[in-house]
Amino acid sequence: MATPADARITPRAEDYPQWYQDVVREADLAEPAKVVKGCMVIKPHGYAIWEKIQRELDSQFRATGHRNAYFPLLVPQSFLQKEAEHVEGFAPELAVVTHAGGQPLEEPYVIRPTSETIIGHFFSKWISSYRDLPLLLNQWANVMRWELRTRLFLRTTEFLWQEGHTAHATHDEAMEEVLRILHVYGDFAESFMAMPVVRGRKTALEKFAGALESYCIEAHMQDGKALQAGTSHDLGQNFGKAFDVRFQNEAGDLDYVWQTSWGVSTRLIGGLVMTHADDDGLVLPPRLAPIHCVIVPIYRNDEQKAQVLEAAERLRKALCDVDLSSPDARYRDFLEVVLDDRDLRPGAKFYHWERRGVPLRIELGPKDLAKGQVCTKFRVDTPVQSGKAFVPTDEFLATVRDKLLAFQDALLERARAAQAADTVVLDDWDDFVASFSGEKSVFAWCHWDGTSETEAAIKEATKVTIRCIPLPGQGPDDGPGRCIRTGRPSAGRVLMAKAY
Amino acid sequence: MATPADARITPRAEDYPQWYQDVVREADLAEPAKVVKGCMVIKPHGYAIWEKIQRELDSQFRATGHRNAYFPLLVPQSFLQKEAEHVEGFAPELAVVTHAGGQPLEEPYVIRPTSETIIGHFFSKWISSYRDLPLLLNQWANVMRWELRTRLFLRTTEFLWQEGHTAHATHDEAMEEVLRILHVYGDFAESFMAMPVVRGRKTALEKFAGALESYCIEAHMQDGKALQAGTSHDLGQNFGKAFDVRFQNEAGDLDYVWQTSWGVSTRLIGGLVMTHADDDGLVLPPRLAPIHCVIVPIYRNDEQKAQVLEAAERLRKALCDVDLSSPDARYRDFLEVVLDDRDLRPGAKFYHWERRGVPLRIELGPKDLAKGQVCTKFRVDTPVQSGKAFVPTDEFLATVRDKLLAFQDALLERARAAQAADTVVLDDWDDFVASFSGEKSVFAWCHWDGTSETEAAIKEATKVTIRCIPLPGQGPDDGPGRCIRTGRPSAGRVLMAKAY
Repeated sequence: MATPADARITPRAEDYPQWYQDVVREADLAEPAKVVKGCMVIKPHGYAIWEKIQRELDSQFRATGHRNAYFPLLVPQSFLQKEAEHVEGFAPELAVVTHAGGQPLEEPYVIRPTSETIIGHFFSKWISSYRDLPLLLNQWANVMRWELRTRLFLRTTEFLWQEGHTAHATHDEAMEEVLRILHVYGDFAESFMAMPVVRGRKTALEKFAGALESYCIEAHMQDGKALQAGTSHDLGQNFGKAFDVRFQNEAGDLDYVWQTSWGVSTRLIGGLVMTHADDDGLVLPPRLAPIHCVIVPIYRNDEQKAQVLEAAERLRKALCDVDLSSPDARYRDFLEVVLDDRDLRPGAKFYHWERRGVPLRIELGPKDLAKGQVCTKFRVDTPVQSGKAFVPTDEFLATVRDKLLAFQDALLERARAAQAADTVVLDDWDDFVASFSGEKSVFAWCHWDGTSETEAAIKEATKVTIRCIPLPGQGPDDGPGRCIRTGRPSAGRVLMAKAY
Repeated sequence: MATPADARITPRAEDYPQWYQDVVREADLAEPAKVVKGCMVIKPHGYAIWEKIQRELDSQFRATGHRNAYFPLLVPQSFLQKEAEHVEGFAPELAVVTHAGGQPLEEPYVIRPTSETIIGHFFSKWISSYRDLPLLLNQWANVMRWELRTRLFLRTTEFLWQEGHTAHATHDEAMEEVLRILHVYGDFAESFMAMPVVRGRKTALEKFAGALESYCIEAHMQDGKALQAGTSHDLGQNFGKAFDVRFQNEAGDLDYVWQTSWGVSTRLIGGLVMTHADDDGLVLPPRLAPIHCVIVPIYRNDEQKAQVLEAAERLRKALCDVDLSSPDARYRDFLEVVLDDRDLRPGAKFYHWERRGVPLRIELGPKDLAKGQVCTKFRVDTPVQSGKAFVPTDEFLATVRDKLLAFQDALLERARAAQAADTVVLDDWDDFVASFSGEKSVFAWCHWDGTSETEAAIKEATKVTIRCIPLPGQGPDDGPGRCIRTGRPSAGRVLMAKAY
């Protein structure tokens, strides 16, 4: 199999944005729609990753008492205007339906950029008493935000996501929910995506339009930039007031509900790519890999071919019975195994599956059959295994589940190390400017005086933003200090970085 | 719990369409969005049914070699016009986006009413050789068709569905695919929805706009009307030619691909309601029920309450380990069990869960505890069990899986009997007119001369349409005859009915 000229993966060191595009293309995850501005087609290998993300998050939402529902794609334009900050934040990004059924519409609809407003409208119909609370809903849906600069998965005009929407009787309960979900997101990112994150709170400049406070998980990408990978919002009573969502509390008084909303999107796939992929292509952690193992048969003649293919098929079947999930999981995560029996050289097959990020490759030839062994190689070298290993077949089958899970952990450790290497604690403005002057960004823990003016000035000077004010245990936790820009007092360090 | 005046379910015999609305509302499946014309909100109990439908169909699509992908929501308006019949069929129903990002668009987009055109565009980029074929894709998505008269689930402006899109090297292979999927749909309807269907081919008047031929499954509703519950289209080379999807065949010649498309939607939930529900509310077959069992504790004082609730909780946990799925299924279909410990009279709880269609109710009181038994009642009487039964707890747990599956089969038999009772074979036009003159429709097997003129004349006179030309074994198969309307020769009987 010849490699077409445009199939090259640009090395990260040469051109990082181009590397990202090349990896996405060569792994066959998605492509720009082009004929629909800023949209993408999510191809089967990319969509299968999204399905695994959905499956796991959905079962965690269920386990925490949430139920799925579906609300209309279209929202009356006037709904957006009911919450002042919300409309200001989203108005520039709306796609508007003005005609339908061959007629102009009396009131235009917008395609949902998010669903707080339409869901607020229904909450006001459904909620009348504290007995109706908490109301814990989630929706898996497409949304649309008209973006000028788009990038596959990271920022597209249409994207897929889940949006949780909950209503509570007290602010305390709403805050519990906001943080519960933040930790669901953080734990998912680390345990399933093998992507370490910093959990924190957004500044006033960076919070969701219409929220009291926004919480987030921020992930480290290989170019040192941060990716906001999930958000959980304390909406206070803002939407309750805008949509008149009132309830009678236990004391018999009428009060507005306290709401939350939270979401993660197909953007996570971009984060997965930029956390793990290398110059040879995609690298996938086993828990989210659509294909876990590829078996490449090695033979020189038809007799060997028949013999090897028969053994390879037996091996494939045996591997398909291996289940990565825990015994009480709702889904059985049986290994997905490809036996690549195409009429191609083995090297071309290695290359094909490496680019697609398959965690484990198994080579099987006549010598292996004679010795009752398989030759295994993981997609990247880690302490679990470096290079090729030759393992008796029985032992391989007995240990492959543990090996894959150990490989999953090793990828997380590798990503943690990369983040640590890019993380600095800075107290001097000149150091700060120097740290962000190159192509590569860093994760900088710095003091900040808490004002939007200073935050804006830092961004203006360096393109660096405050990614979050860390939750306890998520940052250096080394007490108060002086703002890196103004020298004014600061309660504690915040995470600063360039961001996607 | 008092029953609000508007919580009444109108009996079927009194007003069938109102009965349907009442059942959907009282089962808490969905409600009209009102503020978004013709759209609905799918509430958690309704959405959970859709998720079970998705789960099963999705694994059948996978098992037959299909992969999921996602294409843009918006389609350039010009794309629709590339296939003449297609645009004629869909133009009146389109919702049009004319503005985005605060600007008028140069070319408007339509919200996909179906995705043949946008997918045809990408097929032309992805397919160049017979080696790229067959290409077997499926998409789970929302679509929008501006309808004037809408009804929850059955016909809504926005609905959720799956749309399969495949490309093949020959017409024979495409036809194999069309029929393979038709049988997946038919078997799913019968085995999972317990809804018997007739499998057949559409007439020229009723086929999909742009298809050579459309195949369908038609289900019998309790008012004798037919519901088109799923369609599978032989698109021929129509879209291949419209979007220039050409490939080099094995002989080295360029040819247009042969395509298929096929879909089922949230309409199936409407079919489920109208197949099984009764004047007491929803009835759900266990394989699609979001909740399989409800346990209602019975007690007269606090001491009994504590004792009964403890035993009820043990029973609940034991039931949650019962798995309806087969051992090799990808999903574990553990029983979903509600222990209704609300502070309400038992009668109010029975009523609540009956309306929501829960297949099995378990009552547990002090006498049952003393005897080591449970009192069980299925949602409707069938040969499996009529009325209440008192069963030793151990025996109950050992047999509940089989009982639920037997109840599933009994619902199918009950629906088959209802269909048989409404099915007639007619040869006389006056009989035909009389059969369709009442409120209730029938399934009439009649001869037809094969012309669109006659079909249109029959529809004009009686509102009856030809639902399908049955596949072998799906109709009376009693050979040729004379058209019921014109007396001209007919090759075989077709299914005629009023339809949703």
